[in-house]
Amino acid sequence: MAQADFPFQDRFRDHPTLGFVDWSLRGIGQVVFQNNPLSGLIILLALFFNSWIYGTICILGVVVATATAIVLKADKGLIRDGLFGFNGALVGLALVAFTSADFRTGAVPSVAMTVYIVFAAAMTTVAFSTIATLLGPHKVAALTSPFVLVGWLFLFAVLKFAAIEAGPLAKPVSPDQYDAAIAYALPTWYMGIGNAIGQIFFQDNWIAGYLIVIGIAVNSRISAGMALIGAAGAALVAVVFGGPEGAIRDGLFGYNAALTAIAVGGFFLVLTWRSFLYTLFGIVVTTWLWASVAIFLKPIGMPVLTSTFVLVTWLLLIGQYGFKALVPVPPAEATNPEDNLRRYKAATR
Amino acid sequence: MAQADFPFQDRFRDHPTLGFVDWSLRGIGQVVFQNNPLSGLIILLALFFNSWIYGTICILGVVVATATAIVLKADKGLIRDGLFGFNGALVGLALVAFTSADFRTGAVPSVAMTVYIVFAAAMTTVAFSTIATLLGPHKVAALTSPFVLVGWLFLFAVLKFAAIEAGPLAKPVSPDQYDAAIAYALPTWYMGIGNAIGQIFFQDNWIAGYLIVIGIAVNSRISAGMALIGAAGAALVAVVFGGPEGAIRDGLFGYNAALTAIAVGGFFLVLTWRSFLYTLFGIVVTTWLWASVAIFLKPIGMPVLTSTFVLVTWLLLIGQYGFKALVPVPPAEATNPEDNLRRYKAATR
Amino acid sequence: MAQADFPFQDRFRDHPTLGFVDWSLRGIGQVVFQNNPLSGLIILLALFFNSWIYGTICILGVVVATATAIVLKADKGLIRDGLFGFNGALVGLALVAFTSADFRTGAVPSVAMTVYIVFAAAMTTVAFSTIATLLGPHKVAALTSPFVLVGWLFLFAVLKFAAIEAGPLAKPVSPDQYDAAIAYALPTWYMGIGNAIGQIFFQDNWIAGYLIVIGIAVNSRISAGMALIGAAGAALVAVVFGGPEGAIRDGLFGYNAALTAIAVGGFFLVLTWRSFLYTLFGIVVTTWLWASVAIFLKPIGMPVLTSTFVLVTWLLLIGQYGFKALVPVPPAEATNPEDNLRRYKAATR
Repeated sequence: MAQADFPFQDRFRDHPTLGFVDWSLRGIGQVVFQNNPLSGLIILLALFFNSWIYGTICILGVVVATATAIVLKADKGLIRDGLFGFNGALVGLALVAFTSADFRTGAVPSVAMTVYIVFAAAMTTVAFSTIATLLGPHKVAALTSPFVLVGWLFLFAVLKFAAIEAGPLAKPVSPDQYDAAIAYALPTWYMGIGNAIGQIFFQDNWIAGYLIVIGIAVNSRISAGMALIGAAGAALVAVVFGGPEGAIRDGLFGYNAALTAIAVGGFFLVLTWRSFLYTLFGIVVTTWLWASVAIFLKPIGMPVLTSTFVLVTWLLLIGQYGFKALVPVPPAEATNPEDNLRRYKAATR
Repeated sequence: MAQADFPFQDRFRDHPTLGFVDWSLRGIGQVVFQNNPLSGLIILLALFFNSWIYGTICILGVVVATATAIVLKADKGLIRDGLFGFNGALVGLALVAFTSADFRTGAVPSVAMTVYIVFAAAMTTVAFSTIATLLGPHKVAALTSPFVLVGWLFLFAVLKFAAIEAGPLAKPVSPDQYDAAIAYALPTWYMGIGNAIGQIFFQDNWIAGYLIVIGIAVNSRISAGMALIGAAGAALVAVVFGGPEGAIRDGLFGYNAALTAIAVGGFFLVLTWRSFLYTLFGIVVTTWLWASVAIFLKPIGMPVLTSTFVLVTWLLLIGQYGFKALVPVPPAEATNPEDNLRRYKAATR
Repeated sequence: MAQADFPFQDRFRDHPTLGFVDWSLRGIGQVVFQNNPLSGLIILLALFFNSWIYGTICILGVVVATATAIVLKADKGLIRDGLFGFNGALVGLALVAFTSADFRTGAVPSVAMTVYIVFAAAMTTVAFSTIATLLGPHKVAALTSPFVLVGWLFLFAVLKFAAIEAGPLAKPVSPDQYDAAIAYALPTWYMGIGNAIGQIFFQDNWIAGYLIVIGIAVNSRISAGMALIGAAGAALVAVVFGGPEGAIRDGLFGYNAALTAIAVGGFFLVLTWRSFLYTLFGIVVTTWLWASVAIFLKPIGMPVLTSTFVLVTWLLLIGQYGFKALVPVPPAEATNPEDNLRRYKAATR
């Protein structure tokens, strides 16, 4: 087959030696639904731009999770699409972020902590396989639920083993930990939107957030647009309902909503004006419920992670199979929003 | 087709203009499993008898949820049976009840709160579709689980947005918030039973409770009897085990048990002496576990809603598919206890 | 059929009068996956060795749960394998253990408490049927999840009924309730391992723990070995990561890990070197996550029970259906590790 026959971004997917690098980079891209090594590479650079520690941990997480899948002889197609890697990357980032004195840059983990991260990343591979199996009949993806489940479970235990130095969860995790008196201003918006995208990867850096948007746009402009709409919509909802300025500027209201927007807005539903309204509805609900889950979890000192995104998106996507107004794309066929739209138009012409 | 060919209560079910009113009234009736607009109307009047605010909110909730189902092109049969409406009515009532200074009469919601209720009611439609899809293979109904899920999620967030005035959750939500020293008396019983039925709709009014029983009896005397047996049984169990008098008189021990009794006693299981004993078992367990869930949720200030009913009834109904001693009625065929019994007798004769 | 045609331990399985005793003893054995009345008898004697109260309660629980299954006409094969009994035994033991002033010996329950235990044990039968039905398509067993669910629900309610005397949960339930300064010593190991096996049955007695290992070994030496490896591995992980000595010696880190080891190590997966490594991985994760769940539940004063074992084992066993490196044994065919291995070798020869 001539090289021109398949897209540029897939040239290393089946490469005997560089394949593993390709799958790992796709794994990073899959956090934001982009099955493209170039997207993964740009996102990884955005992490390094913020902190070399987070960049390195991201590589560790995705490599361990992908390698575990290979050792356990998981489905090759899923491995090559990076689907075993993204939860490993996230759980590594989360464990470092919430045990470091400085949330922004992270701290180099101890040996015990590194062993712990390796096991947690490997466990996301097992959890992904389990959740994907359970959800199979319902034609909906696992999303980041393996990361949320394993992340919560491993974060709790961290607090009690003497050999692992637990940080003070220095980062606020709930809206009521912010000063309610600060007025909204221009930075609330442009920093809030960038930070929301950054927070998906635990990056408290709004410039890194916009770099991640570029990484998404390389593969899908619709997804990149949706990420921005989700983050901006969440900031708007929070402002209208009087959410604390600090939490909005830090992007806390928006990182779940941005993911909901990417998933529902074109990726798992064909983008039509109806599904666009459904996406806006999802953004509003995700924003409110992020606050809800944050308040629920605060007494036990646990961060929300991307649980609200997972919950709302599952409800929107499983529920829509009962609604004829929307056009679903089964997970196995969801490539990217532009392709979904092209195939739908071809089929209905 | 001559009018006499179908039951009186179904005359407006397919009416082009009055249909929506019919479906909405059925939606109110479906809270207590009565697919009958007249039942819904009587229950609605019982709410207005207690408080015009609750009556109006009930209409808002059921209309929004039903309209959402229509806009999203959900199954027409389900819409016409009122099955998309009842969770919307409940979530509207709950959001007003738990954010009002006076639980008994409720308070007129602000504009922000009204927007919030509309989104919550619309979300119950999505959640109903999702849960019904997930439960489909197990031949068991969603019950009020969409309301419980959406209610919990939306109640939490309320507490943190400045634009929404959150009440102090003035109403006790757990048995240990009552004085344990008060002696049981006659009103413990007749008010307790009436209040338990009223609490299903958040009505702290025992007369409204008995009016609701009349609304149920219009469609099914077995269901009305079961509601009373459930509420009375719960009061008895609570008295025998020394539950606080105030909680019993307020009907808190009984509203979940009354729903379990209606669901298991004749509606989803053919009423036989075996299923009657199974229902009594369910009433006792639901009563205890209401206290359990209340104590579990109290530290986070969240009300039980009808979660105990949902949990125990799911266990009793899914579990019974493994037991030959009971005769199940699949959700799609469950019309009312009298019909279920008639069909079963015809089939076994 | 000549008596020699079937194994010695099955001689009373279909006996008209002694059958019920056989099924109940198997029920006790099934807590540790041993479908053998002799195993059950030895374990029961180990309980009596520690405390006649616990021994008696164990009999009450298993008898009520098994009898409930018979009354409800559940599947005879499952009843005769003791599968309806083991959750009833555990819930009875848990309710006595956590409401007694002295955790070690337990206290004779009051009449109200006894009624309560009977209902809880009966409810495990309903919950077992429900969970087994829900898990059926995923070819994984309910494990002790009915016990965990019913145990948690019934333990909460206990605290609030005046007629039931609730103990002070005198037993520590979380690692942070222990003194972190005590040094590890030889008894940390041999008492910790024995206690871990004992804690499966709420026996705070390391000798009883080793007697239980003998009960397991009568039916399967692999399972007995796995129980010891699981308990010892958990102690090792806890020591390496600096867990408190008291919690390790009391066997708290190990009882979930011991169960994970038995389930994954040969029982539901054919024992190969690959599945052995997978089991070691499961032991490490279960140990950490026990601490995690303990810390999560401590604020509400609820013990972990065997929830960590259930969660991790479900993830490992459902997940592995996506991995070709392991050889699953469907629950219906899982007899004991030795048989599984023999059949696998015969099939691959």
